[in-house]
Amino acid sequence: MPDLEEARAILARAVAAAEALGVPMSIAVVDAGGHLVALERMDGAPYATTEIAWGKAWTSAGFRKPSSALEAGIGANPSFASAVTTVTHGRFMPRQGALPLAAGGAVGASGGTGEQDEDVVRAGIG
Amino acid sequence: MPDLEEARAILARAVAAAEALGVPMSIAVVDAGGHLVALERMDGAPYATTEIAWGKAWTSAGFRKPSSALEAGIGANPSFASAVTTVTHGRFMPRQGALPLAAGGAVGASGGTGEQDEDVVRAGIG
Amino acid sequence: MPDLEEARAILARAVAAAEALGVPMSIAVVDAGGHLVALERMDGAPYATTEIAWGKAWTSAGFRKPSSALEAGIGANPSFASAVTTVTHGRFMPRQGALPLAAGGAVGASGGTGEQDEDVVRAGIG
Amino acid sequence: MPDLEEARAILARAVAAAEALGVPMSIAVVDAGGHLVALERMDGAPYATTEIAWGKAWTSAGFRKPSSALEAGIGANPSFASAVTTVTHGRFMPRQGALPLAAGGAVGASGGTGEQDEDVVRAGIG
Repeated sequence: MPDLEEARAILARAVAAAEALGVPMSIAVVDAGGHLVALERMDGAPYATTEIAWGKAWTSAGFRKPSSALEAGIGANPSFASAVTTVTHGRFMPRQGALPLAAGGAVGASGGTGEQDEDVVRAGIG
Repeated sequence: MPDLEEARAILARAVAAAEALGVPMSIAVVDAGGHLVALERMDGAPYATTEIAWGKAWTSAGFRKPSSALEAGIGANPSFASAVTTVTHGRFMPRQGALPLAAGGAVGASGGTGEQDEDVVRAGIG
Repeated sequence: MPDLEEARAILARAVAAAEALGVPMSIAVVDAGGHLVALERMDGAPYATTEIAWGKAWTSAGFRKPSSALEAGIGANPSFASAVTTVTHGRFMPRQGALPLAAGGAVGASGGTGEQDEDVVRAGIG
Repeated sequence: MPDLEEARAILARAVAAAEALGVPMSIAVVDAGGHLVALERMDGAPYATTEIAWGKAWTSAGFRKPSSALEAGIGANPSFASAVTTVTHGRFMPRQGALPLAAGGAVGASGGTGEQDEDVVRAGIG
């Protein structure tokens, strides 16, 4: 589970990667329970990206998988996905852009394409 | 972010455009945070249009794009769209009919087809 | 039930009264079903006032009473009030600042004290 | 409205102040619309503090007042407070520990007493 120092290092690397892409993003680091450890929204990233970055990270931590893996599984069944989303109050987001941390927790990004978001997360995890 | 005088001018032009089309609509003006500045429902527009006009405007402000752009992106992925809608308590509406304002905020309309709604919003923005 | 022309006249009088008080407010006009007909937020009124003005108006229309009457009734029983608020998704607000319209619907204001809000609504109804 | 660089500076000062107190906290910086710009949870702060820090900051931004001002106003009326909390989906938190920023937005903290939280926020704003 990332401590604050680790989370800051992840965010610094991720923000640098997003800047290199020229895509403003929100990036969220969550613990093994899906709760925020740290979140940053880059200048120019729309506010809706904060909830999406967090949701993807929640999803990755909650299943201990890349969030992209849920696109094909639960996400391919809209009725089931809608139920999981509803019961988790919207936190379940079966969409590429978050990766689990080996020690627990996850990192999610939003603002670019799903691939860009995941690339930025991967750079952040280092 | 529109002040009340700007919002009234937008609404006056938009209502005139909707009257010219003969289609009663609700029209919502929101600030850069998606919160209402002003809303009007024309006579004959069903009450459900008020929430939809607001939702489209929220979506446009929240992503700084025409709401139609979300039809093809997030909106084309039902499981992801459902998640964003749920986490935003229903405000996310990936549907044509709202445009962002250059200075922040957005305008949304509901009551006609998506194209009619967007035309009325465009006339309102002037 | 107010049509848009009536709602605009109510808002114009109410905004003038709030300006005379020097208190920026949000003012909402709802129909007999509690749904928005028109809403305006004056420059300087915080965004939270939009939901509160609407909630008070909803409450007044929903009980066909001044919203202040609900402070003493349901509002004096927190558990009951909480239940009514929850089942109405927050629209029930037992707080002074809204008055019913004789023909159905109501007007609510938020931004000042409960008395100021109600005075502005009274001026708006004319 | 704070940009990310300002938000990071606020968080750095606030975390230092909380460390000096020996109280682990979560600290949230929101924009003028109540949306997150940055959030950090210090090691040892329970996860529930993240939502509370954000809620207090939302409340301060939404009313453009210290969140403590809402303890005496709306917060002293449990039925009204419950309504505002419900309609804002839990974001309204009438509790000391957040202060508005002069340029819009707010900073909130959670983890200590209300006074400690507010002191840390004040140190963060600088």
